[in-house]
Amino acid sequence: MSERLNLLVFSGDYDKALASLILANGAKEMGIDVTMFFAFWGLLVIRDPNKYINENKSIFEKMFSLFTPKKVEKLALSKMNMGGMGQKMLKKMMKEKKKPLLENFLEGARKKDIKFYGCKLSQEVMGFKKEELIPEVEIIEVYDYLKDAMKSDMQLFI
Amino acid sequence: MSERLNLLVFSGDYDKALASLILANGAKEMGIDVTMFFAFWGLLVIRDPNKYINENKSIFEKMFSLFTPKKVEKLALSKMNMGGMGQKMLKKMMKEKKKPLLENFLEGARKKDIKFYGCKLSQEVMGFKKEELIPEVEIIEVYDYLKDAMKSDMQLFI
Amino acid sequence: MSERLNLLVFSGDYDKALASLILANGAKEMGIDVTMFFAFWGLLVIRDPNKYINENKSIFEKMFSLFTPKKVEKLALSKMNMGGMGQKMLKKMMKEKKKPLLENFLEGARKKDIKFYGCKLSQEVMGFKKEELIPEVEIIEVYDYLKDAMKSDMQLFI
Repeated sequence: MSERLNLLVFSGDYDKALASLILANGAKEMGIDVTMFFAFWGLLVIRDPNKYINENKSIFEKMFSLFTPKKVEKLALSKMNMGGMGQKMLKKMMKEKKKPLLENFLEGARKKDIKFYGCKLSQEVMGFKKEELIPEVEIIEVYDYLKDAMKSDMQLFI
Repeated sequence: MSERLNLLVFSGDYDKALASLILANGAKEMGIDVTMFFAFWGLLVIRDPNKYINENKSIFEKMFSLFTPKKVEKLALSKMNMGGMGQKMLKKMMKEKKKPLLENFLEGARKKDIKFYGCKLSQEVMGFKKEELIPEVEIIEVYDYLKDAMKSDMQLFI
Repeated sequence: MSERLNLLVFSGDYDKALASLILANGAKEMGIDVTMFFAFWGLLVIRDPNKYINENKSIFEKMFSLFTPKKVEKLALSKMNMGGMGQKMLKKMMKEKKKPLLENFLEGARKKDIKFYGCKLSQEVMGFKKEELIPEVEIIEVYDYLKDAMKSDMQLFI
């Protein structure tokens, strides 16, 4: 049986999402089974940039959808974001070194058959419809996450 | 022997504390032994809201006690807190969906015989007396945490 | 074979770096093999305070070197930093209790044969030369980190 890596992505920061997807892609390339469980702000990483549903949302849910980035390339840095300037600077530095951006690592992970899970509780509270997330995402309960994570060889909370 | 989950709660943010307690409660309900080790800002999650000791504290310790929330429901969000507005909004969204709040998950964990540890070094540096923490908390050294964590099937730093 | 602890230090915050090094030193004292992998902001923790190379750096790399602290004792808190005041207050509280500071825990880890790795991708993007990091640091790829981490008994993302 192959080794397993389980990542709980709680953060919706550009740099932390990047770290999680670099690890996920790297592990998968090494033949390790990778599961990513996106909870809370982490849901922002798996938003479908082309789908936005406004119906049947409370005012708070609409506000939340509106005030959070629709595209991963718009996510803020966890540090030194400086109103987006720091994030732009980081991305320029990544491009200078010919490194893929967050959206590229995300695409890579989607193509590599990395398992994407979304947290049901977070999804309900934040008011995201299943259709607003990228189609690979399966919505699961915290119990399902725990079952998978406990059987993994390595688990990280990012 | 039953499976074991060990959570190091470093954060004193509302959302991260919530995540840690959702995981802890969920795991315990599945029959997994759960240990929570609260260190640094995490001590704010296990403060006894009804106890406040002012004697034998340095000026810094008094200031620290004063400028940090006494109740878990007053803890700030790690992101989009916006002076407390974001936190209030999140709590409204949780109530709309009939989800328990942080204080409810904490009560649940206390009733479920989840093991609560507090970090001795953090407690000493921050100047919290043992009596200022909820009574379930046992103060331990980092070595005791490591011993417990190394024997667990899964460890997270939150 | 001895037990193994693997810490991925993503954060460059004073308090989180402190937590990682307290865990690393404690584990090593218990006979556990410890590996620390510094990525992203974590590279700031293993900067050599006496070495600064300006040649062959892009404007962004120079700016990044300039706007980030050269000494670990200048790193900011993840919370309540208040322009450095919170950090100074914490350090005063640590000294009052005769606790070692971050630089002392770092020195301890360097003397104790704790393995220090730096993330190649982060180092390239941020523009740090190998010589700008403390000499114990070996630069490795994410694959090497994963290989080491998967074989460890415990892994944390800090």
